[in-house]
Amino acid sequence: MRKLINRSEAIVDEMIDGYLAAYGDYVSRVEGRRVVTRAVPKESGKVGLVIGNGSGHEPIAVGWVGRGMLDANALGEVFAAPPPDLILEAIRAADRGAGVLLLISQHAGDVLNGEMAVELARAEGFEVEVLLMYDDISSAPKGSESERRGAPGTTFIYKIVGARAEEGADLTELKALGERVRDQTRTLSAAVAPGISPLTGEPMFSLPEGEIFLGMGVHGEPGFRRMKGATADEVVAAMMEGILDDLPFEAGDEVLAFVNGAGGTTLMELLIVYRAVAKILGARSLRAYKPLVGEYVTTQEMAGFSISLCRADEEMKRLWDAPVAVPFYHR
Amino acid sequence: MRKLINRSEAIVDEMIDGYLAAYGDYVSRVEGRRVVTRAVPKESGKVGLVIGNGSGHEPIAVGWVGRGMLDANALGEVFAAPPPDLILEAIRAADRGAGVLLLISQHAGDVLNGEMAVELARAEGFEVEVLLMYDDISSAPKGSESERRGAPGTTFIYKIVGARAEEGADLTELKALGERVRDQTRTLSAAVAPGISPLTGEPMFSLPEGEIFLGMGVHGEPGFRRMKGATADEVVAAMMEGILDDLPFEAGDEVLAFVNGAGGTTLMELLIVYRAVAKILGARSLRAYKPLVGEYVTTQEMAGFSISLCRADEEMKRLWDAPVAVPFYHR
Repeated sequence: MRKLINRSEAIVDEMIDGYLAAYGDYVSRVEGRRVVTRAVPKESGKVGLVIGNGSGHEPIAVGWVGRGMLDANALGEVFAAPPPDLILEAIRAADRGAGVLLLISQHAGDVLNGEMAVELARAEGFEVEVLLMYDDISSAPKGSESERRGAPGTTFIYKIVGARAEEGADLTELKALGERVRDQTRTLSAAVAPGISPLTGEPMFSLPEGEIFLGMGVHGEPGFRRMKGATADEVVAAMMEGILDDLPFEAGDEVLAFVNGAGGTTLMELLIVYRAVAKILGARSLRAYKPLVGEYVTTQEMAGFSISLCRADEEMKRLWDAPVAVPFYHR
Repeated sequence: MRKLINRSEAIVDEMIDGYLAAYGDYVSRVEGRRVVTRAVPKESGKVGLVIGNGSGHEPIAVGWVGRGMLDANALGEVFAAPPPDLILEAIRAADRGAGVLLLISQHAGDVLNGEMAVELARAEGFEVEVLLMYDDISSAPKGSESERRGAPGTTFIYKIVGARAEEGADLTELKALGERVRDQTRTLSAAVAPGISPLTGEPMFSLPEGEIFLGMGVHGEPGFRRMKGATADEVVAAMMEGILDDLPFEAGDEVLAFVNGAGGTTLMELLIVYRAVAKILGARSLRAYKPLVGEYVTTQEMAGFSISLCRADEEMKRLWDAPVAVPFYHR
């Protein structure tokens, strides 16, 4: 037994039970459904921010429901998009009369089910807009950005749009802001060792000992390049080259920088990785604003990390730094 | 290559470099030394809180330097206590004329080097008191509490004493408060799979596949009981029996509860573990106050967790809930 669970079919419900038992001062549950909402309902007139996503990537997204970030999260089975009716339930719970922005991290099932939920919600009279989020440069070439997958750089959107929603911005403005952040964001990931599926108890993919896979997705989607026996500095250098060239980022730009741990990589390593990121940013005359390092978007205990950069304007910086009060996001 | 590092002898310095590069708005470094302090020096007259500890357990303790918690942290090599002169340097950095409380998590090397540092500091005229922290019920029998090891339950002390120090309490009061919290705290750990030493690249201990080891220490010290093929609920039930009987905790008590992840155990699992803890607390008529779940005291990517309970009075609850602003502690 590698996983500390009871029954694989009960994982999501028991996780939600545990979350409410521990953090009931922050979050509530829609009775009988896998939908987590804020414990203290927000005031009317605020746009509701909602996401549905597969479980198994915690703390995202369930850990980010609360003031300054999300209003509701629909939790799918492990690594599976939630069904449309569950996302609809989250939209109902999040609506306070000012409409709902449904965030969708771009993966086939999430897009399909999210769009069906939007149709159902509109048929019920809800005002809903969709923000498609994609940032993973390894998943489609430059010029085809809108075909890319969602990756940990979506964190910039949750935080920045969440902060602006709290300030009372309307649905049109929030969607445009989210698109602006998305279009300035680039992410690349590296996998060092697989995570273990809590459903099967087996590793989610295989990787030869000592090799690092660049470009792997958050569900173990294949990457594009293998490196062997490389130091942290060498891996980061290869990744930063791809990221910086893609937007491209240019000397003098100010960037939000985020090093995310995939689950089994220690904070010690993530900080050594960020050291290398910071050196390259400095050498390229890019300025980092309040960087974030930690384990936020995981693939179970997969070892690996991602680097995300967002070219930031003054409004984005202000909102990145705005107060937030959720159990599992803190800078 | 399993670890994302550059050279094993540079791990601690490069980790500190990365930490300062990312969180320089929170922390500074004593020039040329492995001592991390608050970036914004506290006002004079506050007692300084200091700890020296081996690296490799991040985010503790370096991630807890800041307002509401520590004033300075001396970082030893990986899994090795810092030398006395480094702890002395941290004491010098933390002193603001009201004395320093040196926290020592009870492990042989930490006690030895900490006590030598105190002698050196007193010889220099500093007013320093020591708070020995121990909470691991597996490491010595009931009746010999003062021989027990420090374990993740020391978190209650950092947070509660840190909050009271911020309010301006004096050295005598803080030491007494820390002892009161310690004497009401009990912890038991479970290991599921070893972490990997960043120095050797090898697993830190071995454990037969499918077995769980109860009572293992934060450096892989041997436990006292093996369980095989158990569910999360069964493991928690066995652990809670030991913890609740040890103080003992009694019906009607209010407790702080903390489920700590050792590094490689997912938040999903930790929440399922907390669900089981909460059910047992409820069945025993114990009330949990603002529980904490997450990865705070790690042993690299060791899979496992610990359960810590502290019988809380009104002052402890107030201080547990007091504001804190450090990069890697948040409830």
